[in-house]
Amino acid sequence: MLDKKIIRELAQIVGRENILSSKITLTTYSYDSSPFFGMPGAVVFPTSTEEVVEVVKLANKYGISLTPRGAGTCLSGGAITSDEGIIISLTRFNKILEINPVDKVAVVEPGVTNLQVQLAARPYGLMFAPDPGSQNVATIGGNIAENAGGMRGVKYGCTKEHVLGLEVVLPSGEVIRTGSVNSQLTAEVDLTHLFCGSEGILGIITKAWLVLSLLSETVQTMTTTFASIEDAGACVAEIIANGVIPTAMEIMDNTVIKAVDDYLNLGFPRDAQALLLLEIDGFAKDVEVQVATIINAFKNNNALSYKVAQNEEERQELWIARRSVNGALGRLKPANIVHDIVVPRDRLATMLKRSAEIAKKYGVINGQVAHAGDGNIHPTLYFDHRNPQEVEGVEKACDEIIKETIALGGSISGEHGIGLEKLKYVPLAFSQPSLEYMKKIKNSFDPENKFNPGKLLP
Amino acid sequence: MLDKKIIRELAQIVGRENILSSKITLTTYSYDSSPFFGMPGAVVFPTSTEEVVEVVKLANKYGISLTPRGAGTCLSGGAITSDEGIIISLTRFNKILEINPVDKVAVVEPGVTNLQVQLAARPYGLMFAPDPGSQNVATIGGNIAENAGGMRGVKYGCTKEHVLGLEVVLPSGEVIRTGSVNSQLTAEVDLTHLFCGSEGILGIITKAWLVLSLLSETVQTMTTTFASIEDAGACVAEIIANGVIPTAMEIMDNTVIKAVDDYLNLGFPRDAQALLLLEIDGFAKDVEVQVATIINAFKNNNALSYKVAQNEEERQELWIARRSVNGALGRLKPANIVHDIVVPRDRLATMLKRSAEIAKKYGVINGQVAHAGDGNIHPTLYFDHRNPQEVEGVEKACDEIIKETIALGGSISGEHGIGLEKLKYVPLAFSQPSLEYMKKIKNSFDPENKFNPGKLLP
Repeated sequence: MLDKKIIRELAQIVGRENILSSKITLTTYSYDSSPFFGMPGAVVFPTSTEEVVEVVKLANKYGISLTPRGAGTCLSGGAITSDEGIIISLTRFNKILEINPVDKVAVVEPGVTNLQVQLAARPYGLMFAPDPGSQNVATIGGNIAENAGGMRGVKYGCTKEHVLGLEVVLPSGEVIRTGSVNSQLTAEVDLTHLFCGSEGILGIITKAWLVLSLLSETVQTMTTTFASIEDAGACVAEIIANGVIPTAMEIMDNTVIKAVDDYLNLGFPRDAQALLLLEIDGFAKDVEVQVATIINAFKNNNALSYKVAQNEEERQELWIARRSVNGALGRLKPANIVHDIVVPRDRLATMLKRSAEIAKKYGVINGQVAHAGDGNIHPTLYFDHRNPQEVEGVEKACDEIIKETIALGGSISGEHGIGLEKLKYVPLAFSQPSLEYMKKIKNSFDPENKFNPGKLLP
Repeated sequence: MLDKKIIRELAQIVGRENILSSKITLTTYSYDSSPFFGMPGAVVFPTSTEEVVEVVKLANKYGISLTPRGAGTCLSGGAITSDEGIIISLTRFNKILEINPVDKVAVVEPGVTNLQVQLAARPYGLMFAPDPGSQNVATIGGNIAENAGGMRGVKYGCTKEHVLGLEVVLPSGEVIRTGSVNSQLTAEVDLTHLFCGSEGILGIITKAWLVLSLLSETVQTMTTTFASIEDAGACVAEIIANGVIPTAMEIMDNTVIKAVDDYLNLGFPRDAQALLLLEIDGFAKDVEVQVATIINAFKNNNALSYKVAQNEEERQELWIARRSVNGALGRLKPANIVHDIVVPRDRLATMLKRSAEIAKKYGVINGQVAHAGDGNIHPTLYFDHRNPQEVEGVEKACDEIIKETIALGGSISGEHGIGLEKLKYVPLAFSQPSLEYMKKIKNSFDPENKFNPGKLLP
């Protein structure tokens, strides 16, 4: 806990109602959705850029670190302090400032949730394309800082592809505006993309100009199952090769299929090695043609069975299996670690199989879900954290999965960030000079290393 | 011209056949497609990353600056030396290393032309989406360094949205590999986007991993004319509002319409204030629906006439007007300056009118072509550079056009780069702290300011 004098000065900036400093309330902000923990010295809730600037200046005066935080849904430890610094929660700095349907731009404060943007855009026939699993509560500031992905990523890309510009408070207390007026069409040294995915180590996002996309006329959802991962992989490749880019293309492996079926009694074929969930959007006629192409691909690749949703109710039924994965698998063991590896698309089936084999070798339960179109796999290892033998097995399995990913030409994290969790793998993933220049950039913005220290860069 | 000793050492690195040092040959590399001029000390043509590294180290040893250059089609002076340094031409470093149709990735050396990538991708039903006007000769290295746009930009975005990763030789002589395996899904400090559009001031691109996109099943092309710019603007807005995103949506103003008609005798209505050229791509059925929507928008917005190409020959006829703009207007005056401003899409008609008024005030011919969907306008001022009065009028008109752009919330350059040409407008376009941090980043990579000095940052 910070010195009372500093707490008083912070309260003068944000107001007494916008600061937490008791041990019990601080504990609430000592974790995010990762397995890590870090007790903050104080939590402040600024509601304007000016207040953020004043908090930064005060923190500088006392040499205290600052960690920006949205809804705390970060899976890699990005939203917790590593050195008892100040948590700067942006959740009350949360107005939608403008929805411009002609320019298709939303201007929002950082604490607005992803869902709120979707709801505000919908009356204009628009949406914000990034849709991370946590979108109902996750904030835009957090989406940007972690470069969040989502189900729609395969068609629409990740968050940074939908950010036009940012207002950022820098470690110096200076405020800058980055970016351009329309998409990424601009001549400049690109600061916008530098802040996207920088996990709060370069600056605190205080305003964002977001690109809105057209809501589709029609959505069509399908599921199918396969007797082998290879058949599923070949089916995905055939769909893409035929010019169909689904809005979502989710693979679930046999461990997940069985756990979800045990949980929800959906009547899945229990020996299916892969379940594929697909969603197509677009003009009605266009969707019709694409569904026919997809069903052909199912048949050509030995699908065991398939189902096409006939209405919104049936669509939600198909989605419930995907949305219940964590709940279903969480019943098996009390703790888990979610990986977020990315492999070249043509190595997806290979990686799914290797990751399953590695877990089996160490006797660990590994439920795998993948955004197939992105090559982004989430092997999730379930274990009892009170059992040292299980913990050791999980650690070994994690190391092997990461090494295998890199050997296949992959990345250690796609959409969850590096944070604290993947820090030890960073030297495996990046070359020494690449890391050195990333650190030089960090140093240009934050020479004292006071913005979210200990994250992203070792 | 450089000292003979240095020329000899350079020749030892790249071979005698890959260096130019006589005054007459150097003159050929003393200009690009901008109005600027700068005599190089030598021109070298490395053909490997190792040779680029050795040239960088040699230049460092003698304190000589380096300017990377592709085909020299840069419109802003980015490809010429500002201090008689070494031009490092990448045009002979030009192999296509891989086309991977499953991952939809092309791996290429920097001197490969945009057209060569298109031709290599086509047999797989793929394309590289960026299509700058100079694509037949412009190199990929230059496309990336200048973040080139193109006609298809409205639907597919600019170059940086299609770059997966880069190999870059830094001013230190170190080589780094940036980026990820699939699209922009990756957790890291984003160096890839930093190099895109950095105009060679941070590093020399020696290899690029490019995202390939699906070639469309069908393409449909249309033109229409309007009695007012406002009608054209309203028509564009209606098309977009109806969920249609054309592949290309080009506006030409009355000055351009008349000049092109004089040149090619196309029978255009001479008093039309705007000609709109649209191209739609996608699945055949989808394109059919969209064409109907577009024709409705023509009718709803008082189009004077319209034409839909019935076959490839007619399509090429419609495009010839757009492609002949420079040729047609170049007949009027011996010199020109092309602007590359970007305004929010809803201010496109306003900016087109204001830019025309400004030119009229100074008695300057201003032919305007715009990528309407991007808000990217190319007002082109034609003048006789031997007439000081005309030159003065053009300079004043340029300053006013830029100021008006910024007043409307726009950017000074979309796809041509800042280079030497727009350097004087940079302090108007970016805030002091933004510029300061851009310079800090430059300084992190190039503390001696030896990579393309005098470009992009004042």
